[in-house]
Amino acid sequence: MSGIVVRNIERSALDRLAPLGEAGVATVHEALGRIGLMASYLRPIYPGASIVGNAVTVTVAPGDNTTIHVAVELCQEGDVIVIAPTSPCEDGYFGDLFGGALNARGVRGVILEAGCRDVRSLKEMGFPVWSKAVFAQGTVKETMGDVNLPLVCAGQRVEPGDAIVADDDGVLVVPRARIDEARDAAAARIEKEERNRLRFASGEVGLDVYGMRERLIAKGLTYYDDAGAYANRKRT
Amino acid sequence: MSGIVVRNIERSALDRLAPLGEAGVATVHEALGRIGLMASYLRPIYPGASIVGNAVTVTVAPGDNTTIHVAVELCQEGDVIVIAPTSPCEDGYFGDLFGGALNARGVRGVILEAGCRDVRSLKEMGFPVWSKAVFAQGTVKETMGDVNLPLVCAGQRVEPGDAIVADDDGVLVVPRARIDEARDAAAARIEKEERNRLRFASGEVGLDVYGMRERLIAKGLTYYDDAGAYANRKRT
Amino acid sequence: MSGIVVRNIERSALDRLAPLGEAGVATVHEALGRIGLMASYLRPIYPGASIVGNAVTVTVAPGDNTTIHVAVELCQEGDVIVIAPTSPCEDGYFGDLFGGALNARGVRGVILEAGCRDVRSLKEMGFPVWSKAVFAQGTVKETMGDVNLPLVCAGQRVEPGDAIVADDDGVLVVPRARIDEARDAAAARIEKEERNRLRFASGEVGLDVYGMRERLIAKGLTYYDDAGAYANRKRT
Amino acid sequence: MSGIVVRNIERSALDRLAPLGEAGVATVHEALGRIGLMASYLRPIYPGASIVGNAVTVTVAPGDNTTIHVAVELCQEGDVIVIAPTSPCEDGYFGDLFGGALNARGVRGVILEAGCRDVRSLKEMGFPVWSKAVFAQGTVKETMGDVNLPLVCAGQRVEPGDAIVADDDGVLVVPRARIDEARDAAAARIEKEERNRLRFASGEVGLDVYGMRERLIAKGLTYYDDAGAYANRKRT
Amino acid sequence: MSGIVVRNIERSALDRLAPLGEAGVATVHEALGRIGLMASYLRPIYPGASIVGNAVTVTVAPGDNTTIHVAVELCQEGDVIVIAPTSPCEDGYFGDLFGGALNARGVRGVILEAGCRDVRSLKEMGFPVWSKAVFAQGTVKETMGDVNLPLVCAGQRVEPGDAIVADDDGVLVVPRARIDEARDAAAARIEKEERNRLRFASGEVGLDVYGMRERLIAKGLTYYDDAGAYANRKRT
Amino acid sequence: MSGIVVRNIERSALDRLAPLGEAGVATVHEALGRIGLMASYLRPIYPGASIVGNAVTVTVAPGDNTTIHVAVELCQEGDVIVIAPTSPCEDGYFGDLFGGALNARGVRGVILEAGCRDVRSLKEMGFPVWSKAVFAQGTVKETMGDVNLPLVCAGQRVEPGDAIVADDDGVLVVPRARIDEARDAAAARIEKEERNRLRFASGEVGLDVYGMRERLIAKGLTYYDDAGAYANRKRT
Repeated sequence: MSGIVVRNIERSALDRLAPLGEAGVATVHEALGRIGLMASYLRPIYPGASIVGNAVTVTVAPGDNTTIHVAVELCQEGDVIVIAPTSPCEDGYFGDLFGGALNARGVRGVILEAGCRDVRSLKEMGFPVWSKAVFAQGTVKETMGDVNLPLVCAGQRVEPGDAIVADDDGVLVVPRARIDEARDAAAARIEKEERNRLRFASGEVGLDVYGMRERLIAKGLTYYDDAGAYANRKRT
Repeated sequence: MSGIVVRNIERSALDRLAPLGEAGVATVHEALGRIGLMASYLRPIYPGASIVGNAVTVTVAPGDNTTIHVAVELCQEGDVIVIAPTSPCEDGYFGDLFGGALNARGVRGVILEAGCRDVRSLKEMGFPVWSKAVFAQGTVKETMGDVNLPLVCAGQRVEPGDAIVADDDGVLVVPRARIDEARDAAAARIEKEERNRLRFASGEVGLDVYGMRERLIAKGLTYYDDAGAYANRKRT
Repeated sequence: MSGIVVRNIERSALDRLAPLGEAGVATVHEALGRIGLMASYLRPIYPGASIVGNAVTVTVAPGDNTTIHVAVELCQEGDVIVIAPTSPCEDGYFGDLFGGALNARGVRGVILEAGCRDVRSLKEMGFPVWSKAVFAQGTVKETMGDVNLPLVCAGQRVEPGDAIVADDDGVLVVPRARIDEARDAAAARIEKEERNRLRFASGEVGLDVYGMRERLIAKGLTYYDDAGAYANRKRT
Repeated sequence: MSGIVVRNIERSALDRLAPLGEAGVATVHEALGRIGLMASYLRPIYPGASIVGNAVTVTVAPGDNTTIHVAVELCQEGDVIVIAPTSPCEDGYFGDLFGGALNARGVRGVILEAGCRDVRSLKEMGFPVWSKAVFAQGTVKETMGDVNLPLVCAGQRVEPGDAIVADDDGVLVVPRARIDEARDAAAARIEKEERNRLRFASGEVGLDVYGMRERLIAKGLTYYDDAGAYANRKRT
Repeated sequence: MSGIVVRNIERSALDRLAPLGEAGVATVHEALGRIGLMASYLRPIYPGASIVGNAVTVTVAPGDNTTIHVAVELCQEGDVIVIAPTSPCEDGYFGDLFGGALNARGVRGVILEAGCRDVRSLKEMGFPVWSKAVFAQGTVKETMGDVNLPLVCAGQRVEPGDAIVADDDGVLVVPRARIDEARDAAAARIEKEERNRLRFASGEVGLDVYGMRERLIAKGLTYYDDAGAYANRKRT
Repeated sequence: MSGIVVRNIERSALDRLAPLGEAGVATVHEALGRIGLMASYLRPIYPGASIVGNAVTVTVAPGDNTTIHVAVELCQEGDVIVIAPTSPCEDGYFGDLFGGALNARGVRGVILEAGCRDVRSLKEMGFPVWSKAVFAQGTVKETMGDVNLPLVCAGQRVEPGDAIVADDDGVLVVPRARIDEARDAAAARIEKEERNRLRFASGEVGLDVYGMRERLIAKGLTYYDDAGAYANRKRT
């Protein structure tokens, strides 16, 4: 199963993806029904980065970055490389040489279920990585994985060409077939959240904004004036 | 035990609390005899925030933020909401809509033994959260916890109305009955630390400042001039 | 085995060490054959710090910082204190009083396989610490460890006088006898990386820069034009 | 706050406690409304043990078992010692000498949010411990904690004299004032579970036994005959 | 995306699956090219169990076992239920009532990326579960997931009807389309391993059995007679 | 640094080692001043095994068991192989083929800071392994580590020929030069513990057996008759 490379994948036009990046991970995730969120142990190597792009998928052997080298020349403007080791590993698969080469090709960033190094240089060149660890331990070049086959990264299935959204809140996979749906749903959600924000700003609370109050009382929500009232109530 | 809400709690005047915030977590914790420190996995979502306030306590079901909505309208200027799930969960219970609403009410921040999202917006609005994870995964609104009953959060018992101090060093609970004692002990400790700081600045070391030298030598502290002396000593 | 203090250790001249700090952890680690890298759970308490220095080694009992006090007066300009507990502990052994005292003596920083506190003050005074946790929990002064005996910290053996390099990528130990070798190998590596960087900048990829292409094809690397071609291939 | 020892606590008669042990952790926990369950990282050092008893509470300094020695002579037949370190520690506070001494006094077992050692001997003498780790690292005898003050262990508040139930499913605290309520509720739950078990045995399923079927369909539960039907449905 | 239930899935005949169970997780995993192994944090609740069956897939909301109840009546002889929460959770979703009901239907076991309870009863009735935790914390019945849609469990994609193999070494997913290939490859591997076992038994070592010796020496494998020879060699 | 193999190491006679195995990890560790204990995450793959032997040290690349193959033919009766990966890895480096081959050579067991597989077979053949994980994920044979050079495993430095003691309490390294000292100190400790055991059996407690009582009272140990007395005391 290793050593397979699919050269060309179906990508989405970057202007179709852009609204997902503007909406951000939390909003798109909600809008699409809470699917596709990678595990919280993937963290950005520096705060403030926010990207969206087309997934190029790469599996790597533990401690071996061969397949990332194979993937580089297949990348295009607007891609995001998603890298998953075939067994858990936190070695530093990715550093500033890769970052520079990918930056030059217009790659937006890297999602890496392993370790990243040269984090200061990567920050200086503005090339963001979401990784499981920061670890300088280098890798060898002996064993191949695959490029552009489906994989599982940080708990989520990723198909080549899926949209990847990543920011300070984490990393989200949007299936390629649902990108427009995600964009529209995110727009609707943002509009709704704006309306709610105004209501909250005017002093309303979620119990009323979301119509929860009656339902909770029906379920048994009970108010006591103070701790004394609650204590006395219990004794009855 | 769920669905109980105590509306009013005994709070401390904010100017009585202020000195605890100025002293900071590490100093107050020492001053009060090293009690009340929450576990180190609670981390601020951005560095530099520092708060003190009166605890409003909220328990939540796993993956369900109903009770936070219930708590909002009970909060006042100077409160800090302490949120503990009834079983371990890292879902993103808290985001910028909550942050905006609570900011408007003068709430100082949130202590959350679970996940937080919208961390960039929260940072921009200056609403600090100390959480166990950053995770965009949303929550449902089906199951109630309690508001303003005692709870355990990150290893510490919190009573409604206890003082919460939080900064880059972590989160501390000060029992309401001991706030003035904490303030005075922290002031005394700061004064003592300042004196020590001067002695350190003049070149003294802790062995003398804290009177440890003789005691350690009595316990067997032994100096060797260099590795050779130590090696020879062993052979004897 | 506790209470042993070796006063004088063999140090390296600071100008011999400086190039290691400029090269940085990732580069020196690679240059020296990938040895000496401490575990990735050691993280800087603030980003951007970068140090190199001579190791002063300190073991501490769990929850007890006695031995750090013993070590302070033995430190010199350019030292880095490496602190390892004798059993796993995340207590806050180190705070700003220590930081101020060591800063005044020209100590470059601290490597601490435990907890650090007063992190905002330490950042303000520019005294960097790489630690396993941030935790305000204080320590007692009852039980002695040793100073300037060999120890294991975060998975690496450290001898007193070894060079410690630390930056955003982690913490590296360079055996004292190999400092010049490390310096030369790092310089050679930087030169080689610069050449590679130029080739990458001109559009070449690692497959060619590192001469991997033929070897991988010999090992079975197989390209398919697209997912369809791969799917059809499988059916044959 | 350290060095305080309360000699006598209010205990419950052992025959009042016995039914809680027979019902077991999972059943009593459910029966009492899902409160009091300690964190899942507390595991029995050998499978099959099952105990109930009156809590004697002990706090210990990190790496220091002084307070356990203080507690031994205060223990009685039917006690369970609950030991929590004042900061996280996995040292081996408890071994077979303690086990033998406590076994002789009729102590039922130990709940230890730290490390245990001599596990084979403890198993042979039939003295169960629920601990966070197995670790041979010994402790010193320098620093005191408290005996029979309230504490938090593995996320739960424990008052001296509370009932502790522990078996292969974990460790549960039952407040002393609620022991009879717990016993009755557990008995009722066992009876109900027996009835349900018979219904399950006759082939019924939870959807009907718990009356969930209509409610779920009202909430949108939708059945498709097979994957094809679901796929076609989506396209409509 | 929640509340979808696919009633009928394509299953494999149990006698086609049986050889996978006999071969075991480690052998089948190797034989099939090292794909499909779930994360090592899934552990059997008791040692010695070994199963193979057809996957019925179930997603559950955090702290909510509704969907397991939905799945029960769809299960058949030889099934294995694979349960994944939609966000990380270690609550006790599964206990002996479920175990009894499923045992009666001929279900072989459960793979649960969450918590299990009643582990002693489950062991007594011989119903094995591979879970992430043992935790008595119960669940509610409010929120639906899906049954028999593809999911990711412990890092692996599972399609309904895939074969699940589980034993003391962990849990493996074999895609339904590759079951016969897996069976044949496992048989071939067992035969080869038997031949190797005989060679090992006769005193040969892997360097020769696997033909590694020359290749390693070509790569630079270097023997020294003893530590002295190595030390001298280095000095040259 | 890789590919170096030292063929012959200095071993200790097995009858000199035997008493260390009989004394066990916890006792020898105490007797020798609490040095050499490996981290608690190394656990036996089955309970009850207890070994002692001469360390053969092996470093392995992540996901690559080449060097274990190299080591096999260098092993002798009474050896214990200590295996450490050069970066953290939990792959299944070791299984029953290795176990059978080593068992035949009289190797006592394996200490493995990584994953083990075929655990049922290994248990059946009585070949014990202490490992960090159980994981069926296989390894490749491309990259060499070293045999019989010093290494760090689970936090402890191991020199080839050191004594390794392992049982249910964990894994201990005894420096070869201190084996007789360890044996004698362990014997003395066992004798002392036996005397203490008798005193405990006669009803004495540690406070008296270890002469702690007066010292603790001098340090401020304070007894209160009951919770009421303590509460009243505080109010004074």
